[in-house]
Amino acid sequence: MASPGRSPELRQDPVTKRWVIFSPARAKRPTDFQSKSPENPDPNPKSCFFCIGNEHECAPEIFRVPDDPSNPDWKIRVIQNLYPALSRELQNSATVSQNSDPDGCDHVEWGRVLDGFGFHDVVIEAPVHSVQLCDLEPREIGEVLLAYKKRIDQIASFESIKYVQVFKNHGASAGASLSHSHSQILALPVVPPNVSTRLDCMKEYFARVGRCSLCEVQVKDILIDESKHFISIVPFAATFPFEIWIIPRTHSSHFHELDCEKAVDLGGILKLVLRKMSLQLNNPPFNFMIQTSPLQVSAPQLPYCHWFLQIVPQLTGIGGFELGTGCYINPVFPEDAAKVLRELNIP
Amino acid sequence: MASPGRSPELRQDPVTKRWVIFSPARAKRPTDFQSKSPENPDPNPKSCFFCIGNEHECAPEIFRVPDDPSNPDWKIRVIQNLYPALSRELQNSATVSQNSDPDGCDHVEWGRVLDGFGFHDVVIEAPVHSVQLCDLEPREIGEVLLAYKKRIDQIASFESIKYVQVFKNHGASAGASLSHSHSQILALPVVPPNVSTRLDCMKEYFARVGRCSLCEVQVKDILIDESKHFISIVPFAATFPFEIWIIPRTHSSHFHELDCEKAVDLGGILKLVLRKMSLQLNNPPFNFMIQTSPLQVSAPQLPYCHWFLQIVPQLTGIGGFELGTGCYINPVFPEDAAKVLRELNIP
Ligand SMILES: Nc1ncnc2c1ncn2[C@@H]1O[C@H](COP(=O)(O)OP(=O)(O)O[C@H]2O[C@H](CO)[C@@H](O)[C@H](O)[C@H]2O)[C@@H](O)[C@H]1O
Ligand SMILES: Nc1ncnc2c1ncn2[C@@H]1O[C@H](COP(=O)(O)OP(=O)(O)O[C@H]2O[C@H](CO)[C@@H](O)[C@H](O)[C@H]2O)[C@@H](O)[C@H]1O
Repeated sequence: MASPGRSPELRQDPVTKRWVIFSPARAKRPTDFQSKSPENPDPNPKSCFFCIGNEHECAPEIFRVPDDPSNPDWKIRVIQNLYPALSRELQNSATVSQNSDPDGCDHVEWGRVLDGFGFHDVVIEAPVHSVQLCDLEPREIGEVLLAYKKRIDQIASFESIKYVQVFKNHGASAGASLSHSHSQILALPVVPPNVSTRLDCMKEYFARVGRCSLCEVQVKDILIDESKHFISIVPFAATFPFEIWIIPRTHSSHFHELDCEKAVDLGGILKLVLRKMSLQLNNPPFNFMIQTSPLQVSAPQLPYCHWFLQIVPQLTGIGGFELGTGCYINPVFPEDAAKVLRELNIP
Repeated sequence: MASPGRSPELRQDPVTKRWVIFSPARAKRPTDFQSKSPENPDPNPKSCFFCIGNEHECAPEIFRVPDDPSNPDWKIRVIQNLYPALSRELQNSATVSQNSDPDGCDHVEWGRVLDGFGFHDVVIEAPVHSVQLCDLEPREIGEVLLAYKKRIDQIASFESIKYVQVFKNHGASAGASLSHSHSQILALPVVPPNVSTRLDCMKEYFARVGRCSLCEVQVKDILIDESKHFISIVPFAATFPFEIWIIPRTHSSHFHELDCEKAVDLGGILKLVLRKMSLQLNNPPFNFMIQTSPLQVSAPQLPYCHWFLQIVPQLTGIGGFELGTGCYINPVFPEDAAKVLRELNIP
């Protein structure tokens, strides 16, 4: 699987412009640190704020599914994050100050400063502590995805919000601090650097080739699965071993264009890939991120902006090389990872 | 120290263009995962390849300090990495192939591919297993820094090498697989994305202000220490809590311009900051990275390229938000971190 005999190779993905070093030899290096103890969540679900019945221990609710605040029998809850990275209260104070430039930033002597206005929400994906996202039915996962969509639609009315990042941390090594199945929505007053870079790259590809980079992604060798509306692949220059992208087959700039039918279909292919990952890679910690477009894209940008869902199992750490350069070393060639995941049959 | 009452704030560093969210509230969030077990290196130094006497278990030596291969009493060894990310053997095969563009890359259907030519070396910083870098005298640390310089000078003769990344991983959570004190040198056939971005930002600042961004860095509130030739600061928009930069006072584009006197001075201020970090933050895992300029910069670039040494203690992990956006959340304001480190007196 790890093609140990193969020479190292550098690949650059046209969508991220990131150089990745593929080096199977790296997989064999020894360690004299003791292996990590397994990540055991606290087994006592009584203390979990996110469990059904403990709603009063959480920050305020935004909405629940089904959409009836008085129905105690909820399936999904979208709530405020009790320890938010950004503050929804700064909203009114976000007036442009004297020294600021047209995009609303203060130029202090050297760098730039902006009020920490934004929204930081948590999506509780199931009422019961032991249920993980991949245990749900495709239709139920579809409901979680539609809850993201609904919340993005609400946030989109705030003009000063530029980008909404939906993400999930599963397992302590993937950054999760709580084990009850959940994801997060962070709405930002700036377009983040990875998103600007991605858009610039997609624009460049479009200008060069005349078509959207993700509409015509070459799936030979790197395909995992296909559904009616989506494909799952290991990207050509995967940053991390067994990184997976789920891409809509027809052109779509924003995740929140998703309709009910596509949500169930996406729920199905997401469930499949999470189960395959869990079986083949021994239930690894993972992150997923919805890579969508800024809220206020202009009409000329739409033809080359194509959203996708990125899934990253946390199998290896990073070190000073990656921190310093932004280049990554991946010991597993994408074609090899895709083959392993493609050829696994799930009953 | 964590200014818990302060509102969140976004800052953008002019040198990295990275937005960082400063949010003291985040420091208080709970977890239901068991805390990590301490990272214990294997206590049996007999099995360590890097220890004095075990030279035969290592990949070939490039040079040692003092510079006499027959002297068994070495202080520093620079050796090949036995599991290299890039191959020094591909050198002759790195001919430009038919489908390639002027910069030597193959355009396969979709992305770009390059031969994995490069150098990947290990610097063993001390002969004895229990000695860490900060245990050495300033003069001895200076010798390690001069060993980096010597190796970069050697590598600089290869025209196809574009950038040399020197970095150190200390502790398993910082990515280290071996506990014997060492650092690494990875010479790449491309200029990595973080370096291009940094240069673009420094160029923009220079064009706007007329002076080098790091020559005139504002140190008010964020200064830690000063030596004859260097300052240490917590950068204005530190990506990570207690991140530290050591910056040459006088303009210098490349780390490998370092002379003997400056190397000893840098050894002193580096030792001081590592000891302060160890005392204040309980001997944390950390990385350091030498942020220098590409080997072949042009004369007009020199006035705005200024190298520095970046030190990152690993105190918090990252999650899907950071992976997805490239934005970071830092619970500690740089002025607070700098104050803590500045006010600590080391005898
Ligand atoms: N009673 C309550 N009511 C409402 N909300 C509550 C709550 N108790 C806790 N919370 C919130 O629930 C969230 C749980 O989130 P996760 O487990 O996905 O990771 P967390 O955000 O802690 O940090 C991970 O993800 C972030 C973002 O990627 C990284 O910055 C970080 O390093 C990584 O550990 C936390 O954000 C916490 O603030
Ligand atoms: N007998 C021998 N002779 C010569 N060399 C030997 C050797 N035995 C082992 N080595 C090499 O020694 C090095 C030790 O390096 P570190 O402990 O700093 O981290 P490592 O490179 O393993 O990975 C960390 O750093 C890299 C780069 O940042 C990350 O990709 C990775 O995820 C992280 O764990 C390894 O690169 C290994 O290949």
